[in-house]
Amino acid sequence: MGGDNAPRELVRGALAAAEEYGVEIVMIGNRAEIDKVAAEDSLDLSSVEIVHTEVKIDMEDDAVSVVRAKKDSSMSLGLYMLRDGECDAFVSAGNSGALHVGSSLIVRKIKGVRRAGIATVLPMKKPLLLMDCGANIEVVPEDLVQWGTMGAIYMNSIYGIKSPTVGLVNNGVEETKGTPTEIEAYKLFKEADVNFAGNIEAREIPNAPCDVLVTDGFTGNAILKLIEGMGSFIFSELKTMFLASAVSKIAAVLMKKHIRGLKHKFDASEHGGAPFLGVAKPVIKAHGSSDAKAIKNAVRQAIEYSKTGIIEKIADSISANNEKTEKAE
Amino acid sequence: MGGDNAPRELVRGALAAAEEYGVEIVMIGNRAEIDKVAAEDSLDLSSVEIVHTEVKIDMEDDAVSVVRAKKDSSMSLGLYMLRDGECDAFVSAGNSGALHVGSSLIVRKIKGVRRAGIATVLPMKKPLLLMDCGANIEVVPEDLVQWGTMGAIYMNSIYGIKSPTVGLVNNGVEETKGTPTEIEAYKLFKEADVNFAGNIEAREIPNAPCDVLVTDGFTGNAILKLIEGMGSFIFSELKTMFLASAVSKIAAVLMKKHIRGLKHKFDASEHGGAPFLGVAKPVIKAHGSSDAKAIKNAVRQAIEYSKTGIIEKIADSISANNEKTEKAE
Repeated sequence: MGGDNAPRELVRGALAAAEEYGVEIVMIGNRAEIDKVAAEDSLDLSSVEIVHTEVKIDMEDDAVSVVRAKKDSSMSLGLYMLRDGECDAFVSAGNSGALHVGSSLIVRKIKGVRRAGIATVLPMKKPLLLMDCGANIEVVPEDLVQWGTMGAIYMNSIYGIKSPTVGLVNNGVEETKGTPTEIEAYKLFKEADVNFAGNIEAREIPNAPCDVLVTDGFTGNAILKLIEGMGSFIFSELKTMFLASAVSKIAAVLMKKHIRGLKHKFDASEHGGAPFLGVAKPVIKAHGSSDAKAIKNAVRQAIEYSKTGIIEKIADSISANNEKTEKAE
Repeated sequence: MGGDNAPRELVRGALAAAEEYGVEIVMIGNRAEIDKVAAEDSLDLSSVEIVHTEVKIDMEDDAVSVVRAKKDSSMSLGLYMLRDGECDAFVSAGNSGALHVGSSLIVRKIKGVRRAGIATVLPMKKPLLLMDCGANIEVVPEDLVQWGTMGAIYMNSIYGIKSPTVGLVNNGVEETKGTPTEIEAYKLFKEADVNFAGNIEAREIPNAPCDVLVTDGFTGNAILKLIEGMGSFIFSELKTMFLASAVSKIAAVLMKKHIRGLKHKFDASEHGGAPFLGVAKPVIKAHGSSDAKAIKNAVRQAIEYSKTGIIEKIADSISANNEKTEKAE
């Protein structure tokens, strides 16, 4: 029931995923509303299990409502089902903060993980995983290193990148740059079992100078949203440019296919959702503005996430790192 | 002597400014190098005063070198001249950190200003002043409020905006969002004598939803550099698009003028440099990659800065705010 387009686009997207990927879908939400939009679209829900609830978490709700005032919400019920093995992965387009709290407290984190975070694959020169994108506003250096480890496992498992490189967002490349958090994280990264690419300035992000980029959730959120905003802004400037004169309108016709390709590239709905790395089972956050295609892609991502053994690999790696650190101490 | 193109582009730009704006230029740097590039370009230096030094601060130098190991550098000498009234404004394309330290310690801050910062006018839907862009990596809420006050005075004095609005970069619009610094700053802004626009998410930045946007220097640096990087990235994608086929090449010819206009809009050199707000005299940081045009524009900005009485207005406003706060306590 979360996101701007629930339940219609979620029902459409989930049914499309069931058909295309052959997975069983459980929809959790208001049965009457789900039935209504399915009927309007002439969609057949007979293959879908529906878990009914009338409670939903809104964007304005406090994040902890997922385990307190609204623990019978569609989001909470889904997370309990995931915890109890009644489903293998959970996709939500709802309140990110609540999904983060619910994932950590209901589904629980992988043993040894300090804090789970939101990872997003950015459509840059090559795919670039950014973490954290807003779940953890304040961080300690150890979080950044764990996220680097988890992100590298994700990019290896999903994108097949051998030994993914991990960069640290910073205001300069020198190891003395940044707040005390970045300075300490830099030291820890040099010792850690990751392919560390050093400090990365934000100017380089579009060139994807590494495969995984870590930062605190405040900065990560600003980066993620600014990339979205700049994409829209430049497209609107291009539109103005192509509509400026009769001649430019002719050019626009000639370029139609190419412009569509470029737009496609920056289209968040193509890239599915954001995995919550560090949670003990697969949770995917779809964008709040997701349409059916974005939901379908988020389900595809949830399938890949649960099939590639990422969580087991993260558990092994974190436990090995923690043992190493304990020995060193 | 600072920046990537010193001294050639600085000499060219400064001479162009002298001619166009009728100002007296003092060049501080290696006389032999300055004479050499001027001779190569057949430029006449007879109207220019040259203060010779062989020392310059490099990008790798520690920021405090400006007042210690390299206090006879071109940057340091310029700042001493500014302090002593031997010039009215100072423009540098050199090491930002050193320029910030030197401005605060040699020229000194305006009375009552906690910390000076780097402001940059972003070429968004309308001009948007972002502060701090990297001088102060860690901040307290009072810094953000002072920067809002100073930024508003700048946008009023230079752009003629009546009662400029001031926004706070945050990961959501609600007043409970952000780190403890943003939460406290929000409260202080509501009480302060500024036209507060509330929290601004980074997605909105290209739409310029306010006239002044404040944040810590770490986040501000990431925003500034990411905007630069996204601009270059999308232009390179556009170039690929226009070169993709014979048909798209025709479109490129038709669009030539428009593309140039768009590029022009995002061209940092058009927008001059970054004023150091909070310093007791006008200091302008030109981009490290400045060409002659950018230097000329930075000089124009320095002239405007010193003629509009911004510093006096900031001094009055900060002192009135501080008195108000002391009374309230």
